[in-house]
Amino acid sequence: MSSSMLVVTAHVGDFVWRCGGAMALHAQRGVDVHLVCLSYGENGESNAAWKGDTQRDAVKAQRRAEAEAAAQILGVASLDFHDLGDYPLPDSADSVRRISDTLRRTKASVVLTHPEHDPSNLDHCRTFEMALRARMQAMAPGHGADFVVPPQVLCFEPHQTELCGFKPNVLLDITDVWERKWQAMQAMPTQSNLWAYYERVALQRGAQAGRRGKTAGTRYGEAYQSIFPAVVSALME
Amino acid sequence: MSSSMLVVTAHVGDFVWRCGGAMALHAQRGVDVHLVCLSYGENGESNAAWKGDTQRDAVKAQRRAEAEAAAQILGVASLDFHDLGDYPLPDSADSVRRISDTLRRTKASVVLTHPEHDPSNLDHCRTFEMALRARMQAMAPGHGADFVVPPQVLCFEPHQTELCGFKPNVLLDITDVWERKWQAMQAMPTQSNLWAYYERVALQRGAQAGRRGKTAGTRYGEAYQSIFPAVVSALME
Amino acid sequence: MSSSMLVVTAHVGDFVWRCGGAMALHAQRGVDVHLVCLSYGENGESNAAWKGDTQRDAVKAQRRAEAEAAAQILGVASLDFHDLGDYPLPDSADSVRRISDTLRRTKASVVLTHPEHDPSNLDHCRTFEMALRARMQAMAPGHGADFVVPPQVLCFEPHQTELCGFKPNVLLDITDVWERKWQAMQAMPTQSNLWAYYERVALQRGAQAGRRGKTAGTRYGEAYQSIFPAVVSALME
Amino acid sequence: MSSSMLVVTAHVGDFVWRCGGAMALHAQRGVDVHLVCLSYGENGESNAAWKGDTQRDAVKAQRRAEAEAAAQILGVASLDFHDLGDYPLPDSADSVRRISDTLRRTKASVVLTHPEHDPSNLDHCRTFEMALRARMQAMAPGHGADFVVPPQVLCFEPHQTELCGFKPNVLLDITDVWERKWQAMQAMPTQSNLWAYYERVALQRGAQAGRRGKTAGTRYGEAYQSIFPAVVSALME
Amino acid sequence: MSSSMLVVTAHVGDFVWRCGGAMALHAQRGVDVHLVCLSYGENGESNAAWKGDTQRDAVKAQRRAEAEAAAQILGVASLDFHDLGDYPLPDSADSVRRISDTLRRTKASVVLTHPEHDPSNLDHCRTFEMALRARMQAMAPGHGADFVVPPQVLCFEPHQTELCGFKPNVLLDITDVWERKWQAMQAMPTQSNLWAYYERVALQRGAQAGRRGKTAGTRYGEAYQSIFPAVVSALME
Amino acid sequence: MSSSMLVVTAHVGDFVWRCGGAMALHAQRGVDVHLVCLSYGENGESNAAWKGDTQRDAVKAQRRAEAEAAAQILGVASLDFHDLGDYPLPDSADSVRRISDTLRRTKASVVLTHPEHDPSNLDHCRTFEMALRARMQAMAPGHGADFVVPPQVLCFEPHQTELCGFKPNVLLDITDVWERKWQAMQAMPTQSNLWAYYERVALQRGAQAGRRGKTAGTRYGEAYQSIFPAVVSALME
Repeated sequence: MSSSMLVVTAHVGDFVWRCGGAMALHAQRGVDVHLVCLSYGENGESNAAWKGDTQRDAVKAQRRAEAEAAAQILGVASLDFHDLGDYPLPDSADSVRRISDTLRRTKASVVLTHPEHDPSNLDHCRTFEMALRARMQAMAPGHGADFVVPPQVLCFEPHQTELCGFKPNVLLDITDVWERKWQAMQAMPTQSNLWAYYERVALQRGAQAGRRGKTAGTRYGEAYQSIFPAVVSALME
Repeated sequence: MSSSMLVVTAHVGDFVWRCGGAMALHAQRGVDVHLVCLSYGENGESNAAWKGDTQRDAVKAQRRAEAEAAAQILGVASLDFHDLGDYPLPDSADSVRRISDTLRRTKASVVLTHPEHDPSNLDHCRTFEMALRARMQAMAPGHGADFVVPPQVLCFEPHQTELCGFKPNVLLDITDVWERKWQAMQAMPTQSNLWAYYERVALQRGAQAGRRGKTAGTRYGEAYQSIFPAVVSALME
Repeated sequence: MSSSMLVVTAHVGDFVWRCGGAMALHAQRGVDVHLVCLSYGENGESNAAWKGDTQRDAVKAQRRAEAEAAAQILGVASLDFHDLGDYPLPDSADSVRRISDTLRRTKASVVLTHPEHDPSNLDHCRTFEMALRARMQAMAPGHGADFVVPPQVLCFEPHQTELCGFKPNVLLDITDVWERKWQAMQAMPTQSNLWAYYERVALQRGAQAGRRGKTAGTRYGEAYQSIFPAVVSALME
Repeated sequence: MSSSMLVVTAHVGDFVWRCGGAMALHAQRGVDVHLVCLSYGENGESNAAWKGDTQRDAVKAQRRAEAEAAAQILGVASLDFHDLGDYPLPDSADSVRRISDTLRRTKASVVLTHPEHDPSNLDHCRTFEMALRARMQAMAPGHGADFVVPPQVLCFEPHQTELCGFKPNVLLDITDVWERKWQAMQAMPTQSNLWAYYERVALQRGAQAGRRGKTAGTRYGEAYQSIFPAVVSALME
Repeated sequence: MSSSMLVVTAHVGDFVWRCGGAMALHAQRGVDVHLVCLSYGENGESNAAWKGDTQRDAVKAQRRAEAEAAAQILGVASLDFHDLGDYPLPDSADSVRRISDTLRRTKASVVLTHPEHDPSNLDHCRTFEMALRARMQAMAPGHGADFVVPPQVLCFEPHQTELCGFKPNVLLDITDVWERKWQAMQAMPTQSNLWAYYERVALQRGAQAGRRGKTAGTRYGEAYQSIFPAVVSALME
Repeated sequence: MSSSMLVVTAHVGDFVWRCGGAMALHAQRGVDVHLVCLSYGENGESNAAWKGDTQRDAVKAQRRAEAEAAAQILGVASLDFHDLGDYPLPDSADSVRRISDTLRRTKASVVLTHPEHDPSNLDHCRTFEMALRARMQAMAPGHGADFVVPPQVLCFEPHQTELCGFKPNVLLDITDVWERKWQAMQAMPTQSNLWAYYERVALQRGAQAGRRGKTAGTRYGEAYQSIFPAVVSALME
């Protein structure tokens, strides 16, 4: 049985804000959580790092270190930086193959990535498209006998949901691991401008989940949209 | 903990074709499955029953008997006929209140009903709207202290999915109870013209589920679209 | 074989601007074109008629006379005024039954009516909904043995297409009957403010059709959106 | 020139959470802000008020007092309670006429109301539909010579935006009147459970607006979706 | 007058399952049916062919032979393999030019291809996009004086219609050529796992078409979605 | 404060038909209007220029001269031809960088470009996508300290709005500059076949705007769809 999850993001920061709770929650339960960051987000999502005559390499090194620290806090099993550059993130057949190889090796049964549309950030759309292409490549016998059962794809929350046509159909209760997610967020001081914003996102999703939850304790949440129908053996838990 | 499910349909036949598998499956596991049929479908969905000088009451009695037989096969706990008439089904505040009362009494955590849109069958849209209104009424403290936690609403498959904008995000494996569903279908000879059609629907949904399923045995399925985000404590089973 | 068409509009003017070409074209070819106007449009679409102390009955009589004149020019076979009032047009089960009876009597194989959505004119949405309900009622054996094969429904063009989510998939060449449509428009002097507007609509649809047409002569057109899939025996003419 | 705005809500609380900032902002600038509450929200949105043997009239009186206090803080010019009841809110032709009369009297150039869709709260959809019907009635010469230029309709933010298909295209900077909105929120202790939630909504909208704003001071915002195209004389401010 | 049709598919199998009926039907009536397969589907849609140490060339040769046999059964006039590889299918400007040249040479008035969206199979989306680009190239005078009248584009049915947002507006009765389509399907033993699935698809579409058809004999069908409005000279057949 | 606007089009003709009014209007008020044409439209939108043995360079020179003349009439501040070729327009990272540099240099607060979807003209979709990518590149600190506040993007009207899913939310009154737009149109004799078509478009948009406008003088208009929410300080003008 699979006990592995793959997260694919455009920039180093995305996994913390958007699915850090899911990562910590599943890692804590013994799931191997693998992470692929297609770029360091050095151009467009490291504003605070560009001061005076800062060099590109220094910015990338700083963001890499932050990502490694946050990933460790969340319990990530493996971390792969593709270093494709960003704003814009280029398409890359090599990268698609590398994600595909990761899928074949990890047998992940679920992939977390960006939603399909985002007019304010085409890097996110590109990542979604590359992740889906990698999924195809991983399930094709012609690319090797280690082909996989096609995993579910869950899109995590973008910065402005309505702008992206994001329609979450899953609310995950992350109350138990909130402290860990909060620590991971703080391990990314270059984007400290997002701390309060994503704390509020977690509280809103927690409030929405709490209204229909079975326990009174839900305070923090994360929202996801599934791309493929879930195959289930019951309609009630 | 809730162990109850409510099914609300426009006509007597709908529950068998569209969610008979889910009903049998959950009943078999000890869930109380309650059924509300807003009409007998006597006008528009009993074509074979109208012969020569058949009277309306005879058609209604015949359809009622069929529904009772099918419901028994599926293991239904309670069955309520509202007898509103069909083609078209009228709006009814009384009926909304009666569904609301059923929700308060049964504490169902999930409601199965028709999807929101269907240009070929407005009775289905009306039923969806009445079920959602009943859900509101059931959760309002001002209508009595026995108000409920708002249940999930799952829409079952219409006759022509694309015409209705139906987008299933859940595929239920009903292989284990297929025989029972098939028997219930045959308990409705007035609509024998639909037997083969809905057997094929079940096989198609089974094939789609089987591609991504964990076991090799999936042969029959049913498709559902959730209206509200599911509140979950994990993203993998 | 059916050789009958039914047009259902909210106000008396609608049929001229929106499907006058189709009516003239089919009437000329021997199709019986039946027309139902649910209101005289006396409140909201007869602005020029309300002067000084004009009485409601006078306005209605004037609009009725205009509609009769235009219908005659277009070759209408029967004309039925329901006189429900407008702005807003009320729902009416009686009216639905009356449209249903017209369908049973005429055996129309196609119904032309307003599109489903129009935030600026809810009378149009109401008419669409009533026409679809009447279609159901007409096809139900329980309402009489003269039930019909369900007709296609084609929505004609609203005033602001994008506002209404109108997506035409049929462009009808009305060049041959344009003169007749233009005469019918001029038979409605109360809405002379719309003459130039709908002449331009016809020219735009003609230009769009002409780009992909087989003959060079297309100058005027009308746009339609089908609600149900067309059942065809070939994909090319 | 019009200097009047009309707000139409389903329940007494809605105007505070959803458009209290816009109300305070425009009132402060001399616009007459008129408010219509179709119900007191006594059944479904006054949970904290139903204790022991509380009577319906007491709950309604309490909510009315809260609404009057909040409206005064925001600078409302007139306040009209239709007392239709809620959960569910019934359709009412009388109420539509009354809103229409308010539009004719106030000559409001903009109407703020709920968005069209909300499966969790059909009272909101009903209100949207009644407001649009009232707009039609108000612009029809046949209902009186005081007919109006059709106002813009702006939908304010629902509780769960993605569930409602809410797509805001306007972000209003309410930083200057935030204190006033916050006071109005606190004047509604029956729904104190929503205070923190809607403070966070305002901060999120403020952050989104601030990213593209011209000044650095934007901290609080409100989101709106326009139903009709805006008629403008320039594309830049 | 054009009497030619062009089919463009991603993989060799697609034309049989998705539009084999239309191909046989039109070929039988004297239309020249041209077929372009962008890849052999060797990687992702030839699972049964990959056994032990099978070589890629052998798989491709096997699928090519199957496609040629099936095409012959359906009466195809020309068959062009672009051999681009699959899972994923790469973009190719050369291939677009080659399709464009085929369009100019054949003067096809209709193109059958995959629908625009399919998250489970991006090769299908790529093919749609390349076919539309080729259509542009074929209609541009700057690419040669043999430019064409822009053909209609009809999308055939994907594996999971709702997942792809497929909304068919045309149902083609293929009862007369079903035996031929069934033979063509059996000429593709590598994908024998799809035989029963697509037989059921044909039966479902036949049943849907039969409900509104003019004759009682409709048993098998195919569904299509048109991209461009159809230009017609009548609204009834 | 920004007083600059950027227009990005696929072909040389687009700016005249689609946003010539906006360009003239803002230029007349002192806004610097910058124009980028990604191709000369020599292949697909210069039909009248291809006669006998005309050479490509001659067609391009002719279209360039027309564009320069039209741009001068409209008061354009700068004009940049990227000469990428058309039908199809290729993707180009260089071009994206060049647009990005233009944005950084001009500090445009609004970008006018094609809408996202157009199945009949993929060059338009490509241009939209490249403009959005350039916007990202322009706002990224890692590409230079002269990064910009992200501009609004407004899509202008395509040839067939419904085919493109174009939903305008802004109607611009261009009555005051209509004569200038008309002159610019006539400066493009190669596309004289579009003169009457786009005169009618302007009249239809003018009529739509006039219905809700504040003055009686609106005769001509242009329609736009905003991609990002507008950040405003009031909901009424």
